[in-house]
Amino acid sequence: MTMTYQHIEAARQRLKGQAHVTPVMTSRTLNQLVGADIFFKCENYQRVGAFKFRGAFNAMSKLTDEQKAKGVLTLSSGNHAQAVALVGRLLDIRTTVIMPDNAPATKRSATEAYGARVIDYDPDTTSREAVVDRFDREGNYTLVHPFDHEDIIAGQGTATLELAESIGHLDMLLVPCGGGGLLSGSAIAAKGLYPNCRVIGIEPEVADDATRSFHTKILQTVPNPPTIADGTRTPSLGNLTFPLILKYVDDMRTVTEEAIMEAVRFLFYRMKMVVEPSGALGLAALLSGSVKPVGKVGIIISGGNIDGPTMTLILNSEPVDH
Amino acid sequence: MTMTYQHIEAARQRLKGQAHVTPVMTSRTLNQLVGADIFFKCENYQRVGAFKFRGAFNAMSKLTDEQKAKGVLTLSSGNHAQAVALVGRLLDIRTTVIMPDNAPATKRSATEAYGARVIDYDPDTTSREAVVDRFDREGNYTLVHPFDHEDIIAGQGTATLELAESIGHLDMLLVPCGGGGLLSGSAIAAKGLYPNCRVIGIEPEVADDATRSFHTKILQTVPNPPTIADGTRTPSLGNLTFPLILKYVDDMRTVTEEAIMEAVRFLFYRMKMVVEPSGALGLAALLSGSVKPVGKVGIIISGGNIDGPTMTLILNSEPVDH
Repeated sequence: MTMTYQHIEAARQRLKGQAHVTPVMTSRTLNQLVGADIFFKCENYQRVGAFKFRGAFNAMSKLTDEQKAKGVLTLSSGNHAQAVALVGRLLDIRTTVIMPDNAPATKRSATEAYGARVIDYDPDTTSREAVVDRFDREGNYTLVHPFDHEDIIAGQGTATLELAESIGHLDMLLVPCGGGGLLSGSAIAAKGLYPNCRVIGIEPEVADDATRSFHTKILQTVPNPPTIADGTRTPSLGNLTFPLILKYVDDMRTVTEEAIMEAVRFLFYRMKMVVEPSGALGLAALLSGSVKPVGKVGIIISGGNIDGPTMTLILNSEPVDH
Repeated sequence: MTMTYQHIEAARQRLKGQAHVTPVMTSRTLNQLVGADIFFKCENYQRVGAFKFRGAFNAMSKLTDEQKAKGVLTLSSGNHAQAVALVGRLLDIRTTVIMPDNAPATKRSATEAYGARVIDYDPDTTSREAVVDRFDREGNYTLVHPFDHEDIIAGQGTATLELAESIGHLDMLLVPCGGGGLLSGSAIAAKGLYPNCRVIGIEPEVADDATRSFHTKILQTVPNPPTIADGTRTPSLGNLTFPLILKYVDDMRTVTEEAIMEAVRFLFYRMKMVVEPSGALGLAALLSGSVKPVGKVGIIISGGNIDGPTMTLILNSEPVDH
């Protein structure tokens, strides 16, 4: 099966009445600053606070009764875990989430609050794939991978369909990139609607595996990258997302940790939005000059799940003028 | 002249294309928690980050050419200062803002960045009325009072008109109260549309002058109240706003400083919105049980201008479970 625009359209139908149609926000100050019209698609206002609800609902609602009865297994320490847990509750599917034992307590408790069983493992001694394999064998679960899964990719692409419905033609689209589910889905959607729209994936400089993979056309890996953008700490693209990104994405760019924090502060102070570091990558690329915007530019804000200590750190790390 | 619903309708026409029609946000989690349908009218996304733009634009656009030529004078250390400064720039009116010399440097610089001249005074040795009187005499300025002014009140009421346009019938409306401009304008608008809508003003417990004024029907004053909700530090209601509140408002309630901070955290973590403490008063009243919500409840979020240290303080002052 080859993924197409029609898969994303079909996902959109499934998500009707389930996912929020998130707002599109703009800033006159920003438009004047960068000389283009910037439209933020605000998935921080999505259910569970991130775009991940879209993919999880699309994938899990498509399961057969038999697959649903087995229960869903996934691996995630972040927003995908909460999304799978919430969708499990909505669709009455048992969910099990494998999480490293150093995951933030708040993420674990949020996932459990939505009703998932959380299994932890020591990432220093065990690979997460080994844990998944063991569970998959033992429990005969239905695995819903956080990004390397066609229904997940199709679901994530629906944010871009909504953005286009709301503002029409797009000249450029900036999308954060971790495992590439959001980026590949968004690119398929954007190119399906506006073939000339320039789609650019944005990564932290210290987690530039996808950027190097894109340019070398050979899958690159960065294990445990030291970035504040925890949603992009995935070591590499997936078997599905890598070729989709090579096919549909026009370019990849990186941004520094300082640029990410500056973008989170801009969104906080100027736009009054709580955005997690990964969600601020697109704006970071604009503010730092890593991407030169042209015409009507969409930016996907992937999520808003940031804890107090991280926001405190960012608000208090304002650069000193020299 | 008696203020009526028609004044607010007229203000709405003047604001078209100038003020943002701000979004209305909801939270399923909150609705389940309080057992009612809560609709937040998000003036934190208004121009200058607060509802104050509405009143300032309405009042200043109505000035005669002669009044405009004199330039506008106002007194404010907060959001009204920035609003007057921005409207001055938009309408090409010279603006002068009188500000206590202990006002936050960020507010002063933001006001100056919009093009206003800022005059400071020592609030320990001089009353702000005395400074205004002196300037008014010397410079023959046009005074635009931050709340005790019919065109300001009418402008502030337009947020409620938009809320009603967006969601229809309202059973209850919760509005923060400082000098009472927003509260009286909102009440006139709500009662004009839905006479049975219960309008409740919310104040910090330590700044309860309006609540006591409302119940005793005699104007009460609290000088320099020690509340984190800086938008409500006004010592008392005004000559215009007090009788309007007695006429149109159904009740006044107070909330503790802890309840205000809890509401700011809820808006941050659950709704991903940056809201200043004054803007969180309505939600604080719900979460603390100070107001029992019934049916469809509107809450005016007055603004989102919060500095880093204050947000840091609030995020880090999570109550300890006993």
